[in-house]
Amino acid sequence: MILKNTSEIDIVRANSTKINDVDFENLTFGSVFTDHMLVCDFKDGKWEKPVIKPYEPFLIDPSAKVFHYGQAIFEGMKAYKDENDDVWLFRPDENFHRFNKSAIRMAMPEVTEEIFIDGLKTIIDLERDWVKKGDGNSLYIRPFMIAIGSGVIANPSTQYRFMIILSPARSYFAGEVKVIIADHYSRAANGGIGAAKAAGNYAGQFYPTKLANEKGFQQVIWTDDATHTKLEEAGTMNVFVRINDTLITAPISDRILDGITRKSLIDIAKRDGIKIEERSVLVDELLTAAKNGSLKEIFGAGTAAVVSPIVGFSCQDVYYELPKIENSFANDIKDKLTKIQYKQAEDTFGWMVKI
Amino acid sequence: MILKNTSEIDIVRANSTKINDVDFENLTFGSVFTDHMLVCDFKDGKWEKPVIKPYEPFLIDPSAKVFHYGQAIFEGMKAYKDENDDVWLFRPDENFHRFNKSAIRMAMPEVTEEIFIDGLKTIIDLERDWVKKGDGNSLYIRPFMIAIGSGVIANPSTQYRFMIILSPARSYFAGEVKVIIADHYSRAANGGIGAAKAAGNYAGQFYPTKLANEKGFQQVIWTDDATHTKLEEAGTMNVFVRINDTLITAPISDRILDGITRKSLIDIAKRDGIKIEERSVLVDELLTAAKNGSLKEIFGAGTAAVVSPIVGFSCQDVYYELPKIENSFANDIKDKLTKIQYKQAEDTFGWMVKI
Repeated sequence: MILKNTSEIDIVRANSTKINDVDFENLTFGSVFTDHMLVCDFKDGKWEKPVIKPYEPFLIDPSAKVFHYGQAIFEGMKAYKDENDDVWLFRPDENFHRFNKSAIRMAMPEVTEEIFIDGLKTIIDLERDWVKKGDGNSLYIRPFMIAIGSGVIANPSTQYRFMIILSPARSYFAGEVKVIIADHYSRAANGGIGAAKAAGNYAGQFYPTKLANEKGFQQVIWTDDATHTKLEEAGTMNVFVRINDTLITAPISDRILDGITRKSLIDIAKRDGIKIEERSVLVDELLTAAKNGSLKEIFGAGTAAVVSPIVGFSCQDVYYELPKIENSFANDIKDKLTKIQYKQAEDTFGWMVKI
Repeated sequence: MILKNTSEIDIVRANSTKINDVDFENLTFGSVFTDHMLVCDFKDGKWEKPVIKPYEPFLIDPSAKVFHYGQAIFEGMKAYKDENDDVWLFRPDENFHRFNKSAIRMAMPEVTEEIFIDGLKTIIDLERDWVKKGDGNSLYIRPFMIAIGSGVIANPSTQYRFMIILSPARSYFAGEVKVIIADHYSRAANGGIGAAKAAGNYAGQFYPTKLANEKGFQQVIWTDDATHTKLEEAGTMNVFVRINDTLITAPISDRILDGITRKSLIDIAKRDGIKIEERSVLVDELLTAAKNGSLKEIFGAGTAAVVSPIVGFSCQDVYYELPKIENSFANDIKDKLTKIQYKQAEDTFGWMVKI
């Protein structure tokens, strides 16, 4: 191993690379990781120096608080390679700020810009061969933080580990997505942690999603837990509904994640004159629109799939098929967003950051 | 190490014991662990043979699902030693069944009775020297399960680890407990995971509890997330309110944990002619009772502290002090329950199981 000592981040290089063993044409999302990972520990009230080292399992105590009390947050991001072999990040500051908002809500320490942003740049620069050119190719980036302090008393940990791991990804195609509108299970509580990208928000969705799968649906559209009358999110994505030529998406709240794809799509729609409303879509409104033909599209928006069109939904055991339309807003704004991300269109918003 | 191969559980004994280094008179709750732990892995659709081995950190992949999606559940239990040096468990079947209910809700595999119950008996038998006699002494038991499968795609893991770790405990005294009635933050959603003993339910409480601590209060009494008008739980415990001579506790629901201490206290109250109602206590009702003097007691109920009396509460920034009373129901039923647990009173319910 070659030890490189920069001023801010120690780098311990892997002796060899796994890259030649990877079939980049056939990648399962999130299952292959690059040669290195970034690790930065928090103890005695402060962050230690980050280190980039070979990707490998690490030792942790069975009583670590993350296992018992769920102090765990993450972000999802992507790096893209353009035709000139330059590597780009998409709005990393947004992920950085949201990560720290999640940290506060989960009583975890905020990370510094040096650790999060410089850490990202340093490890992605080291792994730039893993970022492949071409439509739909990207390097999925997973910054996360877990409570590693030991002890089974239910209070916040005093020790944490921040890590960045990287996974090469192809374009994420979920197939035809049919959804069920939730009328019993919920994703988030008023005054809960739904707006945080906290691990605990996800595991709670698995069982209701499994029930939906068993009925032939791929995802659940979550509704407000108190009345189940308002659409909130679609699976792990924000949700957009198009009625006639207006796009509508739920406003962010303490139950709804402030999605970066969501806000970018809103900006593109506004720039290009697509009418967009940030307000609650009522289930009743959706049903009326489905019946009278004004419901044109529903889609999820998130980092992994960018935009995930929904072909139909079930509500109270009645199935509603969405029309097949030309001039899909979903396709149009997905295309515009990904062209910015791959540097094939002008970045009028100043979203892209070069590594 | 001596390898003992039973038919059901492999035992790898520690070469030495830490027991002589432990100051049993001065234990911080949940911070010291015994010499051994039980580990049982689930993969390829089935549970492997459990093994009891020296307590130590273990290796885990950075992409393990527990870190990213929060599939993690646990139980809290205690073992007690009576005057004849026999060691007893309290209602272990209740923990076993609740653990599997939690597993289902979090899309995790159920464990078998052989793994959970026989595992408990075998490891506690091995560690019986760690169970100390005397009032308030116990061995706190933490069975838990985490998702150890790797991969950062948001779906259920295919690999899990069930573990049992043990921590000697003294009587848990929280000091004078003043609480705030939640009017913004919440613990659980309708149709959420509040009834599961899932890790994610706990981390979400830390920040609101920290805010309460900063105002001089030790805990939060959670209310329903939709209206904040009904009392639900106190910190990580179930909550009981005594108005005149009636005890009232919220009914179990998908927002409220089916506490084993809670149900045992209800059974004792019923046996001994204390009037008990399982219904929602309204915040308004609490305030009226506090003002007219009919509010006599509020207390939390849970495994760690058994019963935790509350001396006062704040609601909408007004502080209400509870009266100092003789003939406290909290003290009375705590005393009755702990006498059963320490085999100092007849176990009329058949709750105790000998190791």
